[in-house]
Amino acid sequence: MENWKDAGVIDTSNSPNAKLKTIPVNAVKLGGFWKPRLDANRNASIMKLFKLLEENGVTDNFLIASGKKQAERRGPLFTDSDLYKWIEAASFVLQTSPSREISDAIGKAVEAIAGAQEPSGYLNSYFTGPHLAERLKGGGLNHEYYCSGHLIQAAIAHYRATGKRDLFDVAVKLADFWVENVGPDKEIKMYRDHPELEMAMVELYRTTRKKEYLEYAKKLLDNYEFPGYREMEPRRPTSSGHSVMACYLCCGAADYVAETGDEQVRAALDSLWQDVTMRKMFITGGVGSRHVWESFGQAYELPNLRAYAETCAAIANLMWNWRMLCVTGEARFADVAERVLYNGFLSGVSLDGVKYFYTNPLASLDKNIDLPHVSEERLEWHGCTCCPPNVQRMFASLPGYFYTTSREGIWVHFYGESAAGFRLSDGAQVRLAQNTAFPWDGRIEISVSLQQEKKFSLFLRIPGWCRKASVSINNKKISKPARPSSYLNLNRTWKKGDRVTLDLEMPAVLIEAHPRLDSARGAVAIQRGPVVYCVESTDNPGIPVPDIELGSAKLSCGFEKDLLGGIILVKGRVSYPADWKKIKPLYLPKGERKAGSRKKAEAKFIPYYAWANRGESQMQVWIPFHKE
Amino acid sequence: MENWKDAGVIDTSNSPNAKLKTIPVNAVKLGGFWKPRLDANRNASIMKLFKLLEENGVTDNFLIASGKKQAERRGPLFTDSDLYKWIEAASFVLQTSPSREISDAIGKAVEAIAGAQEPSGYLNSYFTGPHLAERLKGGGLNHEYYCSGHLIQAAIAHYRATGKRDLFDVAVKLADFWVENVGPDKEIKMYRDHPELEMAMVELYRTTRKKEYLEYAKKLLDNYEFPGYREMEPRRPTSSGHSVMACYLCCGAADYVAETGDEQVRAALDSLWQDVTMRKMFITGGVGSRHVWESFGQAYELPNLRAYAETCAAIANLMWNWRMLCVTGEARFADVAERVLYNGFLSGVSLDGVKYFYTNPLASLDKNIDLPHVSEERLEWHGCTCCPPNVQRMFASLPGYFYTTSREGIWVHFYGESAAGFRLSDGAQVRLAQNTAFPWDGRIEISVSLQQEKKFSLFLRIPGWCRKASVSINNKKISKPARPSSYLNLNRTWKKGDRVTLDLEMPAVLIEAHPRLDSARGAVAIQRGPVVYCVESTDNPGIPVPDIELGSAKLSCGFEKDLLGGIILVKGRVSYPADWKKIKPLYLPKGERKAGSRKKAEAKFIPYYAWANRGESQMQVWIPFHKE
Repeated sequence: MENWKDAGVIDTSNSPNAKLKTIPVNAVKLGGFWKPRLDANRNASIMKLFKLLEENGVTDNFLIASGKKQAERRGPLFTDSDLYKWIEAASFVLQTSPSREISDAIGKAVEAIAGAQEPSGYLNSYFTGPHLAERLKGGGLNHEYYCSGHLIQAAIAHYRATGKRDLFDVAVKLADFWVENVGPDKEIKMYRDHPELEMAMVELYRTTRKKEYLEYAKKLLDNYEFPGYREMEPRRPTSSGHSVMACYLCCGAADYVAETGDEQVRAALDSLWQDVTMRKMFITGGVGSRHVWESFGQAYELPNLRAYAETCAAIANLMWNWRMLCVTGEARFADVAERVLYNGFLSGVSLDGVKYFYTNPLASLDKNIDLPHVSEERLEWHGCTCCPPNVQRMFASLPGYFYTTSREGIWVHFYGESAAGFRLSDGAQVRLAQNTAFPWDGRIEISVSLQQEKKFSLFLRIPGWCRKASVSINNKKISKPARPSSYLNLNRTWKKGDRVTLDLEMPAVLIEAHPRLDSARGAVAIQRGPVVYCVESTDNPGIPVPDIELGSAKLSCGFEKDLLGGIILVKGRVSYPADWKKIKPLYLPKGERKAGSRKKAEAKFIPYYAWANRGESQMQVWIPFHKE
Repeated sequence: MENWKDAGVIDTSNSPNAKLKTIPVNAVKLGGFWKPRLDANRNASIMKLFKLLEENGVTDNFLIASGKKQAERRGPLFTDSDLYKWIEAASFVLQTSPSREISDAIGKAVEAIAGAQEPSGYLNSYFTGPHLAERLKGGGLNHEYYCSGHLIQAAIAHYRATGKRDLFDVAVKLADFWVENVGPDKEIKMYRDHPELEMAMVELYRTTRKKEYLEYAKKLLDNYEFPGYREMEPRRPTSSGHSVMACYLCCGAADYVAETGDEQVRAALDSLWQDVTMRKMFITGGVGSRHVWESFGQAYELPNLRAYAETCAAIANLMWNWRMLCVTGEARFADVAERVLYNGFLSGVSLDGVKYFYTNPLASLDKNIDLPHVSEERLEWHGCTCCPPNVQRMFASLPGYFYTTSREGIWVHFYGESAAGFRLSDGAQVRLAQNTAFPWDGRIEISVSLQQEKKFSLFLRIPGWCRKASVSINNKKISKPARPSSYLNLNRTWKKGDRVTLDLEMPAVLIEAHPRLDSARGAVAIQRGPVVYCVESTDNPGIPVPDIELGSAKLSCGFEKDLLGGIILVKGRVSYPADWKKIKPLYLPKGERKAGSRKKAEAKFIPYYAWANRGESQMQVWIPFHKE
């Protein structure tokens, strides 16, 4: 408990079965691409959301529960978790940069929360008063476990930011309530709920070393029949195939494996990962195809217009892959995490950081979608507020994802302008700086700085999307092959001033999907490095976005510093029917569709994450392709 | 009212703005393709469903409402309509062939229903007792209008079958209740509900000539802002974009146009028809893409696995197109009706006529779909029982759809082995026989028989799918061009024994979809005549159905009398990856997917309507196509 400052996003430093050891979030300072995003998060998003949470009664709900306020509770039954997740996000901000305003807001929230805790330790603003009788009864999705999990995570992040035990003690008392009162061997039996508490319990174990919490995580997993879990089915009895639930459950399971090495759970996780990444994941890294139950679909059920791909599901997928990476050190997990990070996660938030998508479709062509949680524009407030604080905690904790250590040395997972300083497993201090315009440019210069020279491995991630990578150390080219989706092991004696130059070739390329993926058949997507592109009508006046076809793989790229916060713009030749009416009927014998003459144009493509920042538009990721 | 025996499925004989005049259902006797289906409907399906409705409390609900039975009401709030629709189906059966058993069952149902009618005329088994306070309050989808509409339709069909007024008087009293008590100018205001009452009110007007009913239909349309209706949007305030609701509403609107010629309503209907048939209809004629709200999707949102395509929606689409055809005499409406009939409608029922699909997806590749109303096999009973009696009334009334008359003569809409006898508009009797193996063969011999020779037009429908049609009269070829999707006007003096021979070329052809339809892009469907084909694993052991690709348009066809009740089986060369593992990743740069060697095989294709009659299987309609 003493070294609270040294713990990472999750703390695997003492996890016997985690290959990689996390470093503190404050060990890395991100510049470049991420800086304006993290600054906006810290300077605008956090406090704006706190005020919105207050205005919408989320804080009051605790005061009402504790009897300090007389009013009717507002919002869905899981609003407690929104404030908890906000505290977690705010605490990650405090881990890297103090802020009186944010500290005060957290203090206000903590006071309200602590006041609502009952002597037993139970804490939930919903299951009191008129809903007291529903408490601990299960009934599908009460979110009691879920809210508790988020409180514990918030308390841990807050403790790791401040060393203060106010919220932490509340969390421990709540955790003890579960451990002592609810379980397979208790009078109150466990029931199935929205997963989340599993990973929180493991993290609480990591923080307190009290075995009960780890054991409770196992009980929760068993309750979901976890090692029996084999497919992300559209409807799981355990979690309705709900994509966020399933991925959070897998996070908890991965954390459990990190501590125990449980082979059954590990095998289940691998099977699930194969199922999701090979059959049920959008090119953006988004998951959860269906509006119904916000669930995974069947294999290859990945619609464009109707992609649900909740922002929280993208984050949950990232968190899960990050945990798998920590356990195994395998690059395939970092590849998925990076895919999510630059696409399906980042699309969830506006460039100014204060508006959010709940769903992230791969095409938006018509108006009047008008479905629950679906908006054509990002919104400042969603009645179901799960995504906004989730985005904020992802941003605030992001520096903690860039590096890990192991007994062999240092692992570089992500690239981006940054400066870092942390300890190797033997306690030696090392400083690493990345000088790069990544993700817009594939050249990354890494400078290593040590007090005294030292032999260790620097593991450089060669991304799965990179077909040609070259590495030099102090301008001397390394002959070792750099295979895509692997970590290149640079094992040598490092000394102060050493410079590693990594060149990742990243042309804009056309991506094709698996032939079973009918919604992308006969079409291509454009990807450059980790960034998936889309065509948006805003950049293409006069070109009918839904009707274009790419006819060549020739694409040109150029940096546009004033466009969408600075992006590489991709241009390509497209064609579209000159007379649309001629191809009107839905179904015609092959060869009979008289497309008539086609017009040609140069279309502009922007990063998918940046769409819908300039008012109403049409957008699509998959573009029909016919070789000219 | 006197000539109850002469009225058709709908009675347009006195509709001033209906170009075509219907003939009685009993005027046509269907043989060939339809005979076993109609026989199964009459001899097995009707009574089986009646017993199931009884067993599941649908009849009892009326007895409970009238106080004759003490029990708790069972089933969803719209179960009354299921029994009404069953009575309508059973009455259409009686129109063509008497049955004591069916008559008795109807009598039993009518007695229960009549007993539950209140002195005011109000009749609904749900909004009594515990739900009395909810009566006439709207509240979304109370189905009070809907149930009333089905009662009126049932009563009319029953009256046209028997001349008996028992149920008819109940229906009139109920209609009068609405007219007298609920309306924009009444104390009880109209509210929005599931459409259905509109067409029932028009038909009641046609039967009674009481103008109030026609005027009430207009009030209902106005209440749905009908002439303002322009697009089948995913969510309409009027009807949630619900496909059955929307199509029933359009049926009522078309019936209203037939009586009034209202130009605004007609224009709205045409616009909606364009929207549906050019942007929102499956190749099967099914409509309603979304599971959410059973609704139309956006333009070109026509998924395969996730097609909802409710059987009732197909029927509603057929009914709507039939009404548009009656108003206009335009072949495009008959084309859609025929597309539905042989595909999206017929797939809703098992070959033995007693099991039903609620949803009709275009692909079924995985198990565990497990969504509301979704079953992998047709079921004898659905808790929501709307589709089964709807299928039954479609079968039972089908003979009434084959011919109409107009001042110019006779219109032949559908082809099939049959014998018909009916009156021309001037009262002259004519007999027509079709000798044909349609839809398996495109040769149709029509013999005309009259008491004395007579000059009139015989309008032969040239289907939209037919690229080459030739016609001869008494073995003399007609030089008049027979354009697809038109009626060929054979105007001459007809005399007894005249024979028309129509040859509709119907090779099996590959169909391509509109380029915007992403789920069918790069793929083809096979269609032969009006019949859409699919590939089902049952016929193709050893061939991985989800992975096949067609490489050539060469298809062979042969009749298999013992397969699936007798079908034309289509065979084509397909290929599939020999080593599936090599193409595993979801997303790869174009050209990098190493498909490895491909195996070739001859695959068998069966009519889509016939799938899922032989146990568990995989099926798909759209087959990827790559020219070899």
